[in-house]
Amino acid sequence: MHKSTSGSLGPSGLDLTQAFFKPISGAASPSSTKRHTKISVIGAGNVGMAIAQTILTQDLADELVLVDAKPEKLRGEMLDLQHAAAFLPRTKIIADVDYAVTHGSDLCIVTAGARQIPGESRLNLLHRNVALFRNVIPPLAKYSPDTILLIVSNPVDILTYVAWKLSGFPSNRVVGSGTNLDSSRFRFLIADHLDVNAQDVQAYIVGEHGDSSVALWSSISVGGVPVLSFLDKQEIAYEKETLESIHKVVIDSAYEVISLKGYTSWAIGYSVAALAWSILRDQRKIHPVSVLAKGFYGVDGGDVFLSLPAQLGRGGVLGVTNVHLTDEETQRLRDSANTILEQLSQLGL
Amino acid sequence: MHKSTSGSLGPSGLDLTQAFFKPISGAASPSSTKRHTKISVIGAGNVGMAIAQTILTQDLADELVLVDAKPEKLRGEMLDLQHAAAFLPRTKIIADVDYAVTHGSDLCIVTAGARQIPGESRLNLLHRNVALFRNVIPPLAKYSPDTILLIVSNPVDILTYVAWKLSGFPSNRVVGSGTNLDSSRFRFLIADHLDVNAQDVQAYIVGEHGDSSVALWSSISVGGVPVLSFLDKQEIAYEKETLESIHKVVIDSAYEVISLKGYTSWAIGYSVAALAWSILRDQRKIHPVSVLAKGFYGVDGGDVFLSLPAQLGRGGVLGVTNVHLTDEETQRLRDSANTILEQLSQLGL
Amino acid sequence: MHKSTSGSLGPSGLDLTQAFFKPISGAASPSSTKRHTKISVIGAGNVGMAIAQTILTQDLADELVLVDAKPEKLRGEMLDLQHAAAFLPRTKIIADVDYAVTHGSDLCIVTAGARQIPGESRLNLLHRNVALFRNVIPPLAKYSPDTILLIVSNPVDILTYVAWKLSGFPSNRVVGSGTNLDSSRFRFLIADHLDVNAQDVQAYIVGEHGDSSVALWSSISVGGVPVLSFLDKQEIAYEKETLESIHKVVIDSAYEVISLKGYTSWAIGYSVAALAWSILRDQRKIHPVSVLAKGFYGVDGGDVFLSLPAQLGRGGVLGVTNVHLTDEETQRLRDSANTILEQLSQLGL
Amino acid sequence: MHKSTSGSLGPSGLDLTQAFFKPISGAASPSSTKRHTKISVIGAGNVGMAIAQTILTQDLADELVLVDAKPEKLRGEMLDLQHAAAFLPRTKIIADVDYAVTHGSDLCIVTAGARQIPGESRLNLLHRNVALFRNVIPPLAKYSPDTILLIVSNPVDILTYVAWKLSGFPSNRVVGSGTNLDSSRFRFLIADHLDVNAQDVQAYIVGEHGDSSVALWSSISVGGVPVLSFLDKQEIAYEKETLESIHKVVIDSAYEVISLKGYTSWAIGYSVAALAWSILRDQRKIHPVSVLAKGFYGVDGGDVFLSLPAQLGRGGVLGVTNVHLTDEETQRLRDSANTILEQLSQLGL
Repeated sequence: MHKSTSGSLGPSGLDLTQAFFKPISGAASPSSTKRHTKISVIGAGNVGMAIAQTILTQDLADELVLVDAKPEKLRGEMLDLQHAAAFLPRTKIIADVDYAVTHGSDLCIVTAGARQIPGESRLNLLHRNVALFRNVIPPLAKYSPDTILLIVSNPVDILTYVAWKLSGFPSNRVVGSGTNLDSSRFRFLIADHLDVNAQDVQAYIVGEHGDSSVALWSSISVGGVPVLSFLDKQEIAYEKETLESIHKVVIDSAYEVISLKGYTSWAIGYSVAALAWSILRDQRKIHPVSVLAKGFYGVDGGDVFLSLPAQLGRGGVLGVTNVHLTDEETQRLRDSANTILEQLSQLGL
Repeated sequence: MHKSTSGSLGPSGLDLTQAFFKPISGAASPSSTKRHTKISVIGAGNVGMAIAQTILTQDLADELVLVDAKPEKLRGEMLDLQHAAAFLPRTKIIADVDYAVTHGSDLCIVTAGARQIPGESRLNLLHRNVALFRNVIPPLAKYSPDTILLIVSNPVDILTYVAWKLSGFPSNRVVGSGTNLDSSRFRFLIADHLDVNAQDVQAYIVGEHGDSSVALWSSISVGGVPVLSFLDKQEIAYEKETLESIHKVVIDSAYEVISLKGYTSWAIGYSVAALAWSILRDQRKIHPVSVLAKGFYGVDGGDVFLSLPAQLGRGGVLGVTNVHLTDEETQRLRDSANTILEQLSQLGL
Repeated sequence: MHKSTSGSLGPSGLDLTQAFFKPISGAASPSSTKRHTKISVIGAGNVGMAIAQTILTQDLADELVLVDAKPEKLRGEMLDLQHAAAFLPRTKIIADVDYAVTHGSDLCIVTAGARQIPGESRLNLLHRNVALFRNVIPPLAKYSPDTILLIVSNPVDILTYVAWKLSGFPSNRVVGSGTNLDSSRFRFLIADHLDVNAQDVQAYIVGEHGDSSVALWSSISVGGVPVLSFLDKQEIAYEKETLESIHKVVIDSAYEVISLKGYTSWAIGYSVAALAWSILRDQRKIHPVSVLAKGFYGVDGGDVFLSLPAQLGRGGVLGVTNVHLTDEETQRLRDSANTILEQLSQLGL
Repeated sequence: MHKSTSGSLGPSGLDLTQAFFKPISGAASPSSTKRHTKISVIGAGNVGMAIAQTILTQDLADELVLVDAKPEKLRGEMLDLQHAAAFLPRTKIIADVDYAVTHGSDLCIVTAGARQIPGESRLNLLHRNVALFRNVIPPLAKYSPDTILLIVSNPVDILTYVAWKLSGFPSNRVVGSGTNLDSSRFRFLIADHLDVNAQDVQAYIVGEHGDSSVALWSSISVGGVPVLSFLDKQEIAYEKETLESIHKVVIDSAYEVISLKGYTSWAIGYSVAALAWSILRDQRKIHPVSVLAKGFYGVDGGDVFLSLPAQLGRGGVLGVTNVHLTDEETQRLRDSANTILEQLSQLGL
């Protein structure tokens, strides 16, 4: 399926390349593939392709692999990316339905997931997704035993746990995109209101990626100025309901985009590319992502993945930031954990 | 429709921004909008959005405007891009169904177009597209009388002519994406075969963007080495049929991608973003794009737009490169021109 | 002095360009220079050239102008940058001893300054620098009446005031690089110690760029977590002396680099390029830079420039952030202001 | 010498990092250093530092190492780069006089070289440089047995040969910067004259980096259009002397910059960073660089390094392009080779 498009290109019976380039004398056979960066994206739907294209534009990988169950769609997306070669740094782009093509990946990004059938129960959908992951995770782990798994499929916290279990990987090499995008939406809303650069806004949403997520109000700062204590010191009154309404806009954002355009793609593409960059370029940056949360902030009911501010680098999850939460925030995080744990208990893994 | 998502964000009755930032004394009112770069993309379909997203990633614009006739889809795409603010340089992203929002654009990229109805004749489709352009081009010209129009909608050569007529702009400010993408596909195929970087390959496809396009074999060079004369001098035989088969793969590429994934998006996105960059950053680079070709290479049957290697910069089309064509290439180019002229004669413009 | 190196290049008596490129019919004369971004750097010493080269690499300007009093050095630096054209996006690079070449600049970066003569008093050096600025600022203001002045020459706070007075510009269009670099060093030291990404560290040094600068301890946060309150809540003891020793390392950094390599260049180059980017691309980011501080934090002894966290954009200084300082920090800032005011009173401007 | 600047930063007796970040349970010890990209630059003079800074700006390396014999200068340069951390992606920057710090480099760039003493013969200078390389190359080869050596020191063709001999490396892993910069100057002059983008100009200077270099006139093309055959076909007369005068300007460029500013730095910095990028990101791009030329174009007098258009990638020199030279160009190239061979014969290696 690979790059065989040009098979018929050369003058018949001639290796034009060998005529065009000659090796220098005394040269060892070139070992051009060592130490290059290889990223595999599983699932060539809207989310997977937005991720793949952003990674390509940002020149993160030397080799980009696409895997999907639909061979036509897959080949169409591969060709569409390859045709842009003249506008981009050279990146090897390959695609196949067979996971063998992911061999030796540094990072595997999983976006594959089952869609809800009308009338289907949430639990049934979950069982179908677990079944799908049984076909995805073990071959990834087999062909790239040292890779880092970055799970984007929803429900992300549960499926990151599933990927951890099915891979047998240490917990630092399995991470979910979690609330990284929710936090970006939160930062955009605050930046838009204050007319500042969103990159100057620090603000975290943690916990479950979904309705039970927790906004860390005390973490909001703009240009290094903590906003809540600023308001306190300036004796500016604010209502708790106002804050909660902002959080609600964030939670509703994904639903709103889906209802308007049918799916989300661009923001999750940039969000996951940013995580890939922090990991592969060893940036040691802090992102709110789904990690094994047992033992943090009183989450002690069992092994559960949910989003916490974690430091990411070449080793995967390097550590979890020890943020000070209010009692209420801690309680909400525990509730969020219990919501997920309950679902996990039904999986039978 | 704009960025009103965050309207309810602030503490009640308070302008938080004014509390947070104070003007310095003696400051004139800031004129932050002067001399910024504004790009409008008309049409928020797969092509328009791939272009918009690539422009955003490459940080080409200070303000990016989307216009489409479907308000829900439009708002969904705008929000999806805005949510990525934390991962990108600050760009103002707005969207509206009203063309007034394009006011003062430096570049307007038109991707809107009617789709063929099963059984519809090519001529009927063309008439519908001309009708659509009557609603698109005049308002763009009215709100941005100094803008450059970059037409991507198909059939691109004819619709670029239509945009030129309807706008009343001088011909240097109306350009079609033409065979820029075809040439990129050509360069990829050659680079892939020789295992070189596609950016080291020079190769043009000119004429009509479509089945009558003309491959300039004599223009192919790799790393500055002209390939055909290299083969001649090395006494390497090649068959004319082989060359033509490569050209055929290029022509079939768009059809193949459409048959596989339903549409093309990524490569045209990168291709048009590259043109936007050459224009807005005054790069004076040479691209095969659709320009008013009258008087070149014996094209003298009337005003016709088709692709020739043209130098692009802040003034739009700065000039057309005086490539030496073989007699056969010249004849094919004239045939290509006549094909288009015949269609134009049926438009009644 | 400009780009006349290639004057003798063409075939005799022939305009090769006109043979190579032909205009399309009906084209208006191209207006390729409108709306491009022009940056002038005054002073082609180590600091000025590090700034110019970083701006070039980061593709911030369409036109880059160098002005210096030494024509040979100036031409050498211009040629050295021009020779890299094949490796960079196209940027027009020109140089001249005559300020007329700066005509229509969007941003003028002033690095010119007198060097201390052994045995010379600080006041005498200051008078010589003011005299130098009388030859620099008025021509810049004359040729670019709408420009923004970014002063880098030391003592930066005093010379930014001088530039403001001599230009007659509103205060939002005169800014000094101030403690932007000191703050970067501060952030590096903290990031290096915690093994995090310096871009995740927020920390400000404000006030005078120099020995009386003020470290805002309460402003330090890592990944959005305020460090001092974190230590408090974790009941981790820390000594005030420890914090002060970090500040001292920052203050000593510039001296150390100068004693080791003879001057500073790279870090100030990146620092000023970052300011230029925030201004010209209207990023609305917050930087600690030297602004007219009268009326802020009890600084009320007169017109004085010193560094405060300010929001920068296309209009120059858009506002000053209303950070809450401790009483001790406020007092130190006032002391810093008074130190500068005393020097200003001796200038006789 | 490393990054010990911040040793005294933490609260006494406390590991703040461990308090701030906690590992997740079940995590393997992170292996954050595997597969990162490490570049060592030998020589912290103007050339070495311009290279190091450009590599840093272009985010080519995860770890950047400086080695020089002067510890103060070295530490000053390291600190100056480190202080910019807040403005750049995270890169580990270290410096030492001991070559052990280069351990495991992917690429070693050698800029160290002896300066000519007034009155010193060229041969004596060469002997001193060979002596210097005996102290540089063996430790590099010992600490990074799989590295690629990129030699910049002059006379570059001879010292690249010396590095090849002293390292014992296969010839594909030893390359000299050669005429890559000469060719860039050539392309700039042509682009400047035609008012086109230098990246659209293909033109090679090959052979010895210096007075005997050979301009390949037949290789010049602009936007894919071969210039000489264009002139022929347009019946535009040109004088051979005109062409030679352009070549002469290129040869004189380095001398001119040195006479004006005392040294060259920026252009060689960009030039070498471009080579580093092609090699480390496996770009398979063609550059005119100094390679083992035996057996090419009739160069058969012995092992000699000189510049030929070579394809560079992760394996180093992947091949030499089989350009068709005119008889005169071939003869000049042989003369260039013989000039170098004669000098090599005096080295006694």
